[in-house]
Amino acid sequence: MKARVYVMLKTGVLDPQGEAVRHALGSLGFDGVQGVRQGKLIELDLADGTDEAVIAQMCDKLLANTVIESYRIEVL
Amino acid sequence: MKARVYVMLKTGVLDPQGEAVRHALGSLGFDGVQGVRQGKLIELDLADGTDEAVIAQMCDKLLANTVIESYRIEVL
Repeated sequence: MKARVYVMLKTGVLDPQGEAVRHALGSLGFDGVQGVRQGKLIELDLADGTDEAVIAQMCDKLLANTVIESYRIEVL
Repeated sequence: MKARVYVMLKTGVLDPQGEAVRHALGSLGFDGVQGVRQGKLIELDLADGTDEAVIAQMCDKLLANTVIESYRIEVL
């Protein structure tokens, strides 16, 4: 089975990487870019029948820093 | 308007970051993780009415390295 985990910085946490992208888009002539946030997309290839709770444990322990990041799990 | 861009390494391109995550998950006792690929998730806050073709240009010029990465655009 496959699963996707989306990890984003929580609202209010400064995102210098996203800010750099926003600035670069402006420099390239793309107007109207009001904000950019950059996160991670992790595709997992797991043993069939892996419980979503196990994936959440993976996120809590390794994939996301839950102090500053939130995550969303999508089982495919 | 908001849009999300998902950037992943193309199939066949080595992903050492994903491989490191796979190994770390195994070390933490998560069995059955057969593969991990790590990509980027970019959330854009754009001027209303921005065309999807413009977002594709942003991807081609800056957000993705189309030699080794593929991207998918989702307009919210």
